[in-house]
Amino acid sequence: MALRFDPIEEARRQWVAHGWTEAAPGMAVVTSVVRAQQIFLARIDAELRPLGLTFARYELLMVLAFSRQGAMPLGRVGARLQVHPTSVTNAVDRLEAQGLLRRLPHATDRRTTLAEILPAGRELAEQATVALNKAVFEAPGLDSAETETLFALLRRLRIASGDFVATGGQEEAMATEVGDGR
Amino acid sequence: MALRFDPIEEARRQWVAHGWTEAAPGMAVVTSVVRAQQIFLARIDAELRPLGLTFARYELLMVLAFSRQGAMPLGRVGARLQVHPTSVTNAVDRLEAQGLLRRLPHATDRRTTLAEILPAGRELAEQATVALNKAVFEAPGLDSAETETLFALLRRLRIASGDFVATGGQEEAMATEVGDGR
Repeated sequence: MALRFDPIEEARRQWVAHGWTEAAPGMAVVTSVVRAQQIFLARIDAELRPLGLTFARYELLMVLAFSRQGAMPLGRVGARLQVHPTSVTNAVDRLEAQGLLRRLPHATDRRTTLAEILPAGRELAEQATVALNKAVFEAPGLDSAETETLFALLRRLRIASGDFVATGGQEEAMATEVGDGR
Repeated sequence: MALRFDPIEEARRQWVAHGWTEAAPGMAVVTSVVRAQQIFLARIDAELRPLGLTFARYELLMVLAFSRQGAMPLGRVGARLQVHPTSVTNAVDRLEAQGLLRRLPHATDRRTTLAEILPAGRELAEQATVALNKAVFEAPGLDSAETETLFALLRRLRIASGDFVATGGQEEAMATEVGDGR
């Protein structure tokens, strides 16, 4: 059931009415981000659930699929996906049980475990990408210019939160990173 | 550990390299929204956890606190928060056990249950708001103009997804809604 008013606008009005004027725009934008995520995740889950994947497990498979060797230390997977080591372990457990990847010992460093994507994992990741591209990514709900503006604003937010260091040397930093893949 | 490159830019580059050019901007923006939500929720949880609240339960308390009677049918709470009835039931169970609200039968409609906020609930919601305003909402990580642009873009997304009907009559629609509070 669609509401006949914007609940976030209404919360913002209440914030101002309670004298929390300084915080009202931030409350509205943070709540909007949380809501937008729910909207996107519902659309994503509708595509991935039939394939036995969650977005977190899909992202993990894609990071491995894109890596030079198809394998990456678990710690680096967590850094790339910006998730907690426990979440990586859980996702890798699940994907391993599904026969989509396997764990491997590191060639030289005994303390390091790698995750290696298996052919079935590549195939499912590709299938999931085709589905997501068509159902979600090709029509996110904004036009092309709005999409770029939104991306740029969220990028500033991510930088402000310390997600990554914007050095202006993306190419070079990536080359160092992927060259050290195994 | 901050990465030395933007993992979402890198995924976008990979999307283009694989010929998924049409979907690349949408993938980047959707992934950015998911990541921004994680960032905000981590900051929110750090404030709410010591108070025994989640963001979902906090939002529920605030909707009741802002209602004219301090009470609302559970179905309407779900519509306002745009969450599934099961989630409302779970949150209400938890808040009731915490002594922050109580369930009440509707005065005239026996099939309807209301949630009514208790004084302890109002107090905790206020305390949580003060904490969130200071730690998150007053400094979301963007300047004032960027915050408004981001809010407006996400509002378009929310409208496109059918979250609410933008009639231009927010005031009137709200008056109808809140006047029917009990």
